[in-house]
Amino acid sequence: MTAVPEGGEFDFDAETRLVPGSADGTFQVEISDRWSGMASVNGGFLMANCLKALDAVLPFPDPITVSGLYLRPGNAGPAVITTELIRSGRTTAFGRASLFQGGKEALRVTAAFANLTAAPLNSAVTPDYTGITPPKLPDPSGCERLTGLGGITLGRRFEYRGTAQPGWLSGHPSGEPSAEFWMRFADGRPADTLTLPFITDAAPPAVLELGAGSTTIELTVHVRARPAPGWLACRSYTRFVAGGYHEEDFEVWDSAGTLVAQSRQLALIRPFASLFPLGGEAGTE
Amino acid sequence: MTAVPEGGEFDFDAETRLVPGSADGTFQVEISDRWSGMASVNGGFLMANCLKALDAVLPFPDPITVSGLYLRPGNAGPAVITTELIRSGRTTAFGRASLFQGGKEALRVTAAFANLTAAPLNSAVTPDYTGITPPKLPDPSGCERLTGLGGITLGRRFEYRGTAQPGWLSGHPSGEPSAEFWMRFADGRPADTLTLPFITDAAPPAVLELGAGSTTIELTVHVRARPAPGWLACRSYTRFVAGGYHEEDFEVWDSAGTLVAQSRQLALIRPFASLFPLGGEAGTE
Repeated sequence: MTAVPEGGEFDFDAETRLVPGSADGTFQVEISDRWSGMASVNGGFLMANCLKALDAVLPFPDPITVSGLYLRPGNAGPAVITTELIRSGRTTAFGRASLFQGGKEALRVTAAFANLTAAPLNSAVTPDYTGITPPKLPDPSGCERLTGLGGITLGRRFEYRGTAQPGWLSGHPSGEPSAEFWMRFADGRPADTLTLPFITDAAPPAVLELGAGSTTIELTVHVRARPAPGWLACRSYTRFVAGGYHEEDFEVWDSAGTLVAQSRQLALIRPFASLFPLGGEAGTE
Repeated sequence: MTAVPEGGEFDFDAETRLVPGSADGTFQVEISDRWSGMASVNGGFLMANCLKALDAVLPFPDPITVSGLYLRPGNAGPAVITTELIRSGRTTAFGRASLFQGGKEALRVTAAFANLTAAPLNSAVTPDYTGITPPKLPDPSGCERLTGLGGITLGRRFEYRGTAQPGWLSGHPSGEPSAEFWMRFADGRPADTLTLPFITDAAPPAVLELGAGSTTIELTVHVRARPAPGWLACRSYTRFVAGGYHEEDFEVWDSAGTLVAQSRQLALIRPFASLFPLGGEAGTE
């Protein structure tokens, strides 16, 4: 965990550099191979590239809701992102971003952006309400670092800490598809509202504890607040597996105990066997 | 509760008749004023019209995931729905539908369709899993009918039954933004995978129990199975209200105890006062 080097950049920012294309609202980007899961480039990472494009064309800073349809696997290499300003209102703007590789659309994103620090329109109407509590975890310094993910490039770019190593990692899935853990960018980059959606898809899927893998079909993320600096307390859980599909919910709480993002995805069950061998070393590169 | 009249149609089907437009994949429809909430046409009803359009252009029968961005309030009157086949794969097809009124886009829907009765690709991978149980409700015949919604046209087209009248209805919100109740089309129309997304948005919002109203910004629905005939057991809950926004989760369980749909929406808090007077009579028209 280090501050950004003088004159340097954090990995995420250096590896998601969008270059404006010849047409308005179009961008070129080289999709990095350093943010991949088992089978292909992480879906949240592709969404993060699209959100950077939308951030460049929408007049508000915070994506309050983002939905992505995963049409084809993403690959490392060149991509083109097209954007559309669907509607710009007084407090909310709506946009679409599409990520193309080899002329084919791999990801379709729709989103609404607003300013999460603006005074609520109806702040007098009802007080804030929180119906559940953040994950109950010891301080990160008292937790174990999740090891064994070094064979997945994504696993080197984030750091995960929990109270124990998960069962699936040693080939003994617990049968309980849920997890609570700390998470942060391994190089210390602070999370922000443009990267929180990525983070909701950047941890091991909860269905690993059922002995299954996962391929995302659709991911929707609500960003509820700008995160305070520091570690993020995360909770993932799957409640329904049926007919070869499952959903996964993911909550991200900041160091001040505020829920900053919640997501749900619909995904296909994949064979567990394809996840191994993970190989490689844990830790940052 | 009646079977469909001989030679007749259920209300929903009669009032969502799409007429193919001159361009391929374009439809004209007269948006009915008989499926409205307090302020405007119900958002789930608008989504249902878009799903009928997508059903006409996509090669699979069941919308497994649907996301809608609510750009402008919908009004009774003419509308045009345009569609786009984004990608058609071997087991899943992806599409977009946009609903326009007066030349302005009111709703943008993206969806994936599949065949929920097809054999799962990875059925041998992991058994089905259900982490929570259906709402615990007495048989519908032993429940009270929710009254007092007759002033909202939507409230006459669905029937809701629970163990007690909700607090908000008598001006005494409980402070607990959750509810469990039975629900069905008032004229006995069976629910199907094309109408389940509508149903997740067609009940009183849970935040009424916090003394607040609600306007949907974004709604995502996962349809998990084709529903068995009969009453639907529903559960709605809001866990986070902050900065003028709230989410609402909604589960729909069929008469066989299977989760058939789950949804989450992001919505703006609205003043409660605008919800009254409800007036009118409960019950079907």
